[in-house]
Amino acid sequence: MLKGKVLVAQAGGPTAVINQSLVGVILEARKHPEIESVYGARFGVRGIVKEDFIDLSNMPVDVLERIAQTPGSALGSTRDKPDEEYCIKMFEAMKKNNIRYFFYIGGNDTSASASIVNDQAKKAGYELRVFHIPKTIDNDLVLNDHCPGFGSAATFIARAFVGVNLDNASLPGVYIAIVMGRHAGFLTASSIMAKKYPDDGPHLIYLPERSFSKEKFVQDVQNVYNMYGRCVVAVSEGIVDNEGIPIATRLQKEIDRDAHGNVQLSGSGALGELLTDVLKANTDIKRIRVDTFGYLQRSFLGCVSLTDQKEAREVGQKAVEFSVQEDVDGSIIIKRTGDYSIQYELAPLADVAGKTKVMSDEFIAGDNMVSDAFRDYVRPLMGEMSEVERIL
Amino acid sequence: MLKGKVLVAQAGGPTAVINQSLVGVILEARKHPEIESVYGARFGVRGIVKEDFIDLSNMPVDVLERIAQTPGSALGSTRDKPDEEYCIKMFEAMKKNNIRYFFYIGGNDTSASASIVNDQAKKAGYELRVFHIPKTIDNDLVLNDHCPGFGSAATFIARAFVGVNLDNASLPGVYIAIVMGRHAGFLTASSIMAKKYPDDGPHLIYLPERSFSKEKFVQDVQNVYNMYGRCVVAVSEGIVDNEGIPIATRLQKEIDRDAHGNVQLSGSGALGELLTDVLKANTDIKRIRVDTFGYLQRSFLGCVSLTDQKEAREVGQKAVEFSVQEDVDGSIIIKRTGDYSIQYELAPLADVAGKTKVMSDEFIAGDNMVSDAFRDYVRPLMGEMSEVERIL
Repeated sequence: MLKGKVLVAQAGGPTAVINQSLVGVILEARKHPEIESVYGARFGVRGIVKEDFIDLSNMPVDVLERIAQTPGSALGSTRDKPDEEYCIKMFEAMKKNNIRYFFYIGGNDTSASASIVNDQAKKAGYELRVFHIPKTIDNDLVLNDHCPGFGSAATFIARAFVGVNLDNASLPGVYIAIVMGRHAGFLTASSIMAKKYPDDGPHLIYLPERSFSKEKFVQDVQNVYNMYGRCVVAVSEGIVDNEGIPIATRLQKEIDRDAHGNVQLSGSGALGELLTDVLKANTDIKRIRVDTFGYLQRSFLGCVSLTDQKEAREVGQKAVEFSVQEDVDGSIIIKRTGDYSIQYELAPLADVAGKTKVMSDEFIAGDNMVSDAFRDYVRPLMGEMSEVERIL
Repeated sequence: MLKGKVLVAQAGGPTAVINQSLVGVILEARKHPEIESVYGARFGVRGIVKEDFIDLSNMPVDVLERIAQTPGSALGSTRDKPDEEYCIKMFEAMKKNNIRYFFYIGGNDTSASASIVNDQAKKAGYELRVFHIPKTIDNDLVLNDHCPGFGSAATFIARAFVGVNLDNASLPGVYIAIVMGRHAGFLTASSIMAKKYPDDGPHLIYLPERSFSKEKFVQDVQNVYNMYGRCVVAVSEGIVDNEGIPIATRLQKEIDRDAHGNVQLSGSGALGELLTDVLKANTDIKRIRVDTFGYLQRSFLGCVSLTDQKEAREVGQKAVEFSVQEDVDGSIIIKRTGDYSIQYELAPLADVAGKTKVMSDEFIAGDNMVSDAFRDYVRPLMGEMSEVERIL
């Protein structure tokens, strides 16, 4: 069994529970005598080439437990994609420090990076165990029933929609919220959990899995407005036109891409404004408001799902357990085994790396709603929702 | 002592605790035998002219207590401003139902409406006790130390900034959030409560009380970025240029005004995009992100300050107590009497009506920060903030 140091790092967009996975790795790794010590790399792979390490071996448990509760990526994140040259520098830094286990916490792109590092290590003859630990609010990692980070973000979305639905009932009109999700609509779809009574919003949900037509959108909103005198709409930032091009990118002055080729969709109100303009031009509805939820979806303090929190901890622990018990590399995946129970398995890195899962047809109802099957799917992943009551 | 029915209504933007005040009125009014019954008007004064009333006299306490916990205005809201003709219709509906007490929960414009109703009732010879019950997340009612609704919204802002600060520390760059507040910067200023360590954001806070210069803004951001490699900025939606004109209104294609003459500043990402463009044109900073917080600030489920919740209930109760014990009209005001203690007083409607309080000079530090005095002021009004911990 491989003796050496553990190195843990985080990449991609932070979540409310990504530090649970970090602390899961640290505390589990400390239990194993074959692991000399536990290092953290600052800002993902970027910190490895710079040998920018923090020794986490003796960090007190109470400090670690506070970090676990803290949103954001405590070690810092990156969107760097390593190539062969980048990896060679990483292995030099790793060799110098006798790092033999690498745990990389992140989403699709992070799994791709982990897979590259794994392949390059083999090629370079550097003995290294590489593990990808899942994290993404987009919930779009293949093979996984769901991903750590999603349940908490879904809770944020549901709590946000309970509020904006009641706000919209107080001051009726059309309300649109743009929700994160580049290719997969899971997070936008979670807005359905705000719906208690039949006339509650969201009344319409637009997902990247179905092509979006402005004409149909106008008609849908007008129909709901005619029925209830108001309309609450959830729109994914990733909605695409009939050519499959994200509408948000059509609106951008300059396309901002990261190293993985992802176009930046968040942090702009352009899509929301387009939808408002379309409604203003084609309906007589007076009060139209739009919000782009932005970064609060993944960082808001004190909005977590306890199930998500627990699972985020366990994927970190499991990765270490697999790494020391079996002489393999891989990506930890979550399988749903009952209603509700899960188990953790190990998948080859290449099977997960860079792939994107989208919502299955059974979760989608028509072109503007989600199904009851989706409600059943997401309910056990959610955090606490306070009870609300309406008079109107 | 005046015998008759109580009518309660809500107006203006909803908050997380406005229903506490509603339930405070209902439960207190039910205790007094001289009050025949308690009616609610749907959608504020608009519901009065339409005689659109709900009898709340026998609504079960458990239902009321759930409504009290629910964000939004449970009776519906309005931005209508009544004139003489409007009031005469209101008095006809009131007379028909023997309504002799009118409690109107809302902010500046609502106090103005209450004052108009009061004056017109005297003019029309309709015997009516009129009370304004304070509510506003903007915290800008004169004579009040603070306003119900503000403490919960301030908690939302602080929790949001804890998150975006950590997110920005994970993926460094410039992050800007646009916060609600038409004329007063209290809510934007509350972002300071997210700052634990000296290098935490928000690093810059721009308030409507100081004129905003794009040149100075670029310089401020660049200075912080040079120091920390990142910069988190809180900007009020109401920031004004050196002519005192809100910058957001300069950017609007069409100016949307309500009956009170207020320009709509929320629900558009234009100000945030302008600030991003200014930074892109004048600095070399690569990663610049902006969010416009929007309606979540006043409606998000499960983000309340217990102090705010308690005081919102008490201003409703107090209004009824004053109305039956003393034969007067007025606006309930909150005075701070200690650190921390308050008392409720009654002020003439005309002293509060339509006036706006802004942040005093002692709460502001320079042109881009708030003072320690502001932290001391806002701290006792805030709700729970979970503990966080940083490694970086």
